[in-house]
Amino acid sequence: MVSSDLTIKFMTPMQELIPRVEERMHRQAIGHHPDLGAALQHLLSSGGKRIRPTVALLTGMMLGAEIEDLITLSASIELLHTATLVHDDLIDGALLRRGIATLNSRWTPAATVLTGDFIFAQAARLAAETNSVAVMGIFAQTLATIVNGEIAQMFNSRGIANRQEYHERIYAKTASMFELATEAAALLSPADSAKRRVVRTFGYEIGMAFQIVDDILDFTGDQSTVGKPVAGDLRQGLVTLPAICYLELNPDDPDTEFLKLGGYPSGTVIDRLVESIRASGAIRAAMQEARGFVGRGLDALTGMPEGVEKQALINLAQYIVEREL
Amino acid sequence: MVSSDLTIKFMTPMQELIPRVEERMHRQAIGHHPDLGAALQHLLSSGGKRIRPTVALLTGMMLGAEIEDLITLSASIELLHTATLVHDDLIDGALLRRGIATLNSRWTPAATVLTGDFIFAQAARLAAETNSVAVMGIFAQTLATIVNGEIAQMFNSRGIANRQEYHERIYAKTASMFELATEAAALLSPADSAKRRVVRTFGYEIGMAFQIVDDILDFTGDQSTVGKPVAGDLRQGLVTLPAICYLELNPDDPDTEFLKLGGYPSGTVIDRLVESIRASGAIRAAMQEARGFVGRGLDALTGMPEGVEKQALINLAQYIVEREL
Repeated sequence: MVSSDLTIKFMTPMQELIPRVEERMHRQAIGHHPDLGAALQHLLSSGGKRIRPTVALLTGMMLGAEIEDLITLSASIELLHTATLVHDDLIDGALLRRGIATLNSRWTPAATVLTGDFIFAQAARLAAETNSVAVMGIFAQTLATIVNGEIAQMFNSRGIANRQEYHERIYAKTASMFELATEAAALLSPADSAKRRVVRTFGYEIGMAFQIVDDILDFTGDQSTVGKPVAGDLRQGLVTLPAICYLELNPDDPDTEFLKLGGYPSGTVIDRLVESIRASGAIRAAMQEARGFVGRGLDALTGMPEGVEKQALINLAQYIVEREL
Repeated sequence: MVSSDLTIKFMTPMQELIPRVEERMHRQAIGHHPDLGAALQHLLSSGGKRIRPTVALLTGMMLGAEIEDLITLSASIELLHTATLVHDDLIDGALLRRGIATLNSRWTPAATVLTGDFIFAQAARLAAETNSVAVMGIFAQTLATIVNGEIAQMFNSRGIANRQEYHERIYAKTASMFELATEAAALLSPADSAKRRVVRTFGYEIGMAFQIVDDILDFTGDQSTVGKPVAGDLRQGLVTLPAICYLELNPDDPDTEFLKLGGYPSGTVIDRLVESIRASGAIRAAMQEARGFVGRGLDALTGMPEGVEKQALINLAQYIVEREL
């Protein structure tokens, strides 16, 4: 839902560029099996905020990279993101994503695995088209980080609240791709390595904040808006920051027992705990942590070249923690 | 089973290099989740002929590339191959590969999908480590070709004999990766584009032959050697060259009806047809076609620099059509 004033402020410089990124993504199915084209069309039609391409474009433009290279990079990153979602939804058995049917809800597991693989391949092809060995390197490294994070999540004990594990998980899942977006954009620009480290830090910090806010929205949103059941993560045994904060604030609530010891609580316990978390200061505490990340991201930007792009990045960072709760 | 005289002839120049490729592959799990290390160990322990690394190493050495770059490339290609096998076996529900348990027979589908993704990521990382944008480009293109071929195979009508579709399928499945091995090795060497095209052709031709012989062995091997049921492909509705040749030689055999019209014949029909194919001239005809590919591959090599590497490539090409039937 890209509609608030803030969104407009950071999207304006991008108005003509995002459609070119979309077009690059759509073109990747040309010359391949028609069902792949249909699948890609379906996946891309669900829209999404295209926040990773926006971050890559703004960062690269701020640092003087060529627009054409940035469009290639942005399409590559968004396809990488899309491919990981395809396999994730298959693994989770999710039926809806952003309110529309997931691929796995309509296709066989086999076709879904292969479509994800195909989109990975196209993302890698686009990354190679940036003609930067360094970009390719961090692209591949990011894919490894994301998948390693998913595997760790699968094997780690369910239900236990562990702040460090949570941070590692959201880094692998989300912040690593924001880092890729900013660092790769810098690599395609004339910026020196000091500036590159700065924007990488910015990407890391806002990526962490972005995932924390997503995890908060999982508790505070209602099912019709988010397109999935409230606290779906916790119901699947995945403990996110609101639950971690709640446990820290209410260590004696018997409903939190499983967050300390693991195990599978009853639906009644989960329902009650979700209500407790929603009504508690845990949401505010988690939000405070997200704001901390955004603040460090903004601090990092201080020395960056002034201009509409920098201002748009600032607006975007603020938007992350001001999305409708 | 690397033991014949011919094998020794092409393996000798590689004796010390293949273990270095193995070591590079094993190292990719370091620093990641321990279960990934175990999975990679298990997958690599099944051995296999390492024919793709051997082709890349010999081609690159013949053209004067640096050994270290070729080891990186070879590890990348073999991991790409391994990753596609992991997802293939999951999709086919295969329980054994090279006589040992597949990953999907021991792990959940979710863990298997992610392990395949992780190996893709490591393959891409190694490809990027060659520091060649061109190598990265054809690496990504090859992955797209392989996956597109698998998707086409999934959606195409089962059971119908179609020579062109067969050629496209074995190109996507196997020859594309041999092309990658030879062309990428040339890209890492000082060879000009004419030489690069020559070795790419060599890779294409021996890759096609390699898959045809694999498909012949599916009919002629016995279950204990091959590690899977005889004519497993045909039983799954996948028509390979021996069946295509048989149909051309015996168009009036009523058991071949489904090869013209599609559909699912009974087990009795399949058993009888498999016996007919094994006893017919179809095996020899298919072998003749494989020899034609190898012959064109050898012709292509004519102008290449003389030396032990070229001789080993010639021996390897001949080995492909002289493997034990």
